[in-house]
Amino acid sequence: MELIATPDAAVVWKDNQLFLLDQRLLPETEVFIQLSSSRETAQAITDMVVRGAPAIGVTAAYGVVLAAREAFLMDARQWKQTIEPLLDDLALARPTAINLHWALARMKQLIVQLPDGDPENALIKEAQLIHSQDIESNVCLSDIAADLMQGCGSVITHCNAGALATGGYGTALGVIKSAFRDGKVDHVYADETRPWFQGSRLTAWELEKSGIPCTVMVDSVAATLMAQSKVSWVIVGSDRIAANGDVANKIGTYSLIVNAKFHGVKVMVAAPSSTIAMNTATGADIPIELRGSDEVMKCGGKQVGVRGVDVLNPVFDVTPAALIDVIVTEKGAIFHPSEEKIKALMLS
Amino acid sequence: MELIATPDAAVVWKDNQLFLLDQRLLPETEVFIQLSSSRETAQAITDMVVRGAPAIGVTAAYGVVLAAREAFLMDARQWKQTIEPLLDDLALARPTAINLHWALARMKQLIVQLPDGDPENALIKEAQLIHSQDIESNVCLSDIAADLMQGCGSVITHCNAGALATGGYGTALGVIKSAFRDGKVDHVYADETRPWFQGSRLTAWELEKSGIPCTVMVDSVAATLMAQSKVSWVIVGSDRIAANGDVANKIGTYSLIVNAKFHGVKVMVAAPSSTIAMNTATGADIPIELRGSDEVMKCGGKQVGVRGVDVLNPVFDVTPAALIDVIVTEKGAIFHPSEEKIKALMLS
Repeated sequence: MELIATPDAAVVWKDNQLFLLDQRLLPETEVFIQLSSSRETAQAITDMVVRGAPAIGVTAAYGVVLAAREAFLMDARQWKQTIEPLLDDLALARPTAINLHWALARMKQLIVQLPDGDPENALIKEAQLIHSQDIESNVCLSDIAADLMQGCGSVITHCNAGALATGGYGTALGVIKSAFRDGKVDHVYADETRPWFQGSRLTAWELEKSGIPCTVMVDSVAATLMAQSKVSWVIVGSDRIAANGDVANKIGTYSLIVNAKFHGVKVMVAAPSSTIAMNTATGADIPIELRGSDEVMKCGGKQVGVRGVDVLNPVFDVTPAALIDVIVTEKGAIFHPSEEKIKALMLS
Repeated sequence: MELIATPDAAVVWKDNQLFLLDQRLLPETEVFIQLSSSRETAQAITDMVVRGAPAIGVTAAYGVVLAAREAFLMDARQWKQTIEPLLDDLALARPTAINLHWALARMKQLIVQLPDGDPENALIKEAQLIHSQDIESNVCLSDIAADLMQGCGSVITHCNAGALATGGYGTALGVIKSAFRDGKVDHVYADETRPWFQGSRLTAWELEKSGIPCTVMVDSVAATLMAQSKVSWVIVGSDRIAANGDVANKIGTYSLIVNAKFHGVKVMVAAPSSTIAMNTATGADIPIELRGSDEVMKCGGKQVGVRGVDVLNPVFDVTPAALIDVIVTEKGAIFHPSEEKIKALMLS
C-alpha cells in the first residue's frame, strides 16, 4: 500500500481500509497510519493523528464502517446493538468539534434504516458521500467567499483550516486558495498557532504546496501587522458555530478577532453548514476541550518550561457573533450573524 | 568560584569578574558563564545569555569595566581612545532596550571625568552603583504600584520582567511580589511568551521560588481569562518608553493590552525611569529588533515548522500611551501617560 502525502489526502479510504496521514509528525515526516478498528480510530482522533473539525467528522464516518465490520463479524444478527458502545467511543473522542457528532448522527440514521445482512457496502457508500460532500461544500463556500472579497491584499489565518483539516480543499484555506486564484489575496500571514503549531507545521506546508506566498509568525505578531495596516482580512475556520452565531475555534482565534475589531480589520469565518449546531444555543454552551500540560511545557519532545508548574491549556475559545463580519457556508454567506439569519440559512 | 542560581543573581560581579546566569538554559540547567572581555559581554547580550532591559543595562555597565581593563592594559596613556570601539560594540549588542544606552552613557560620563591612572576601581564602583540603584528603584516602584492596587485578585504578566530581567527584585514581577506580600495579588497567570518562552521558563521559575501561585498558559489564552472576568490587571515591564508614553515591550504585549482595553482590564507598565527615553519622541521612533527564524521554527533544538518558509520575528512591539492606565517608576506613578506628565516626572 503506497500512499503519497498531499494536503488532500489527510483521510484516505482505500481497498476498504482507513488510512490517516499522521499530522503529529508533519512537516518533517510524512507517514500514513492504518486503522484497523473503530477504537483505534477514536484513539487516533483523541491523539490528534487527524484534527480539524470536518476531517474529524469524515474520519468518524469511516470509523463507523470499521465499527460495523467488527460488530457484524461478532454477531451478524445483533450487530445494531453490538455497535452502540463502539459508536459511543467515537463520539467521546473529542468534545468541541460538532462535525464529529454530525457525521455519527448521519451514519446512525442510515444504520436504523438498513435491512438485514452485511451493512458494510451501504455504510462505505454513505461515509464516502459525507467525504465527497465535504469537499464539494468547501469548494462551494470558498468560491462564495472569494466573490465577496474586494481588491487584493494580505490576510491572516490562524490554526490550519485547510485540506488537512477537512475532507479536502479546506475551509479558511479553501477560501484563501480560491481568492488567490481570483487575484483577491496575494500573501498569507500564518499564525504559528500555539501550542500545537498547526500554522508553522501544517498551514505553511499546505500553502507551500499550493504555491501561495506565506509568512509564519508567532501568534501575537498579528496585532502589529494590523496596526501597520498590512492585512485586510482575518480568515478562520470553526469547530462549532452555535445557533446564535457564536464561533468556537482554535485557541487564539478570539484574541486575534478582538484585535481585528480594534484595528478595523474584517473577520470571516469559513465553515460547512455541518459545523452549525442548531441545538447549541450560544457559545457558552460549547464544551471547550482542556488538554494536558505537556503540549505547552514540552517542545520537540524536550522539556522547555518549569516542571510541575500549573498549566491551563484550553485548546479552543469562543468568539461572540457580534465580532464576526461574515460567516460563509456552502449554503451562502451571513453578514453580521444572528440567530434569525442562521435559522433562515439552515432552512434554505 | 561557586555561584548559586537564584533569581537575584542573574548578573554577578564577584572577585572582579563578571558572571551571567545563562538564561537560555533555564530552568532545566543552572549554569553561570564568566565573561572575560567586553566583546564577549556584547556577544552574550546579543545571544540572550542575559536579557531584560535593566539587566542588559547593568551587564553593559560591567562590560565597560572589562573594556577599560583591556584598554588600559593595551595602552595606559591612550586608554580613553582605545576603549571607544569596545563601547560601540556594547552599544550595538541589541537595539530596542534603552537601558543599555543609558548605562553606557552614564559610564562614559564618568570616563570623561576620570584623572590619569588605572580607572578600574572608579568604574567598578559606578557599575555597582548602577546595579544597586536598579534594585532600589525596582523595590521602590513596586511598593508604589502595590499601594495603588485595590482588593485582591489574579493578574496576567507577559514575558519576564523579574529579578532575572533586572539588577534584582524585578519590575512587573517586583510589583507582583510586593502586591502578593500586601495581599493585593493572590495568583499570577504567566503568558508563556513566544517565541523565547520567557514566561514558562523564567517567570514560572521565579514565581515558584518566591512561593507565588502561578499558572502558565499560551499567550492567546489571556483573552479568554479576560472574557471570564478572571483577571484584574495586566502588569508588564518595558524595554523603552518614548517621551510621549508609548511603550515598547516584548512581542505580544500590544496584543494583550488591546484585549485588556476591550475587556475593561486595567493595564500597568512597571519600569525604572532609566527606561524612559526622552530623546525618543514616540513609539514610531523605537527601533524594533528582528531576530532569526529559528527562534520560531525550531523548538528544544528540533525543527518544528516547515523548513525554508518565510518567517517574521519582531521580538518587541509598541503599545500607544492611550491604552495604558498607569506607568509606575521609582519617581512615582503616571496615570494616563502623556508627553507633559512624563516630562514633569523626569524633571521631578
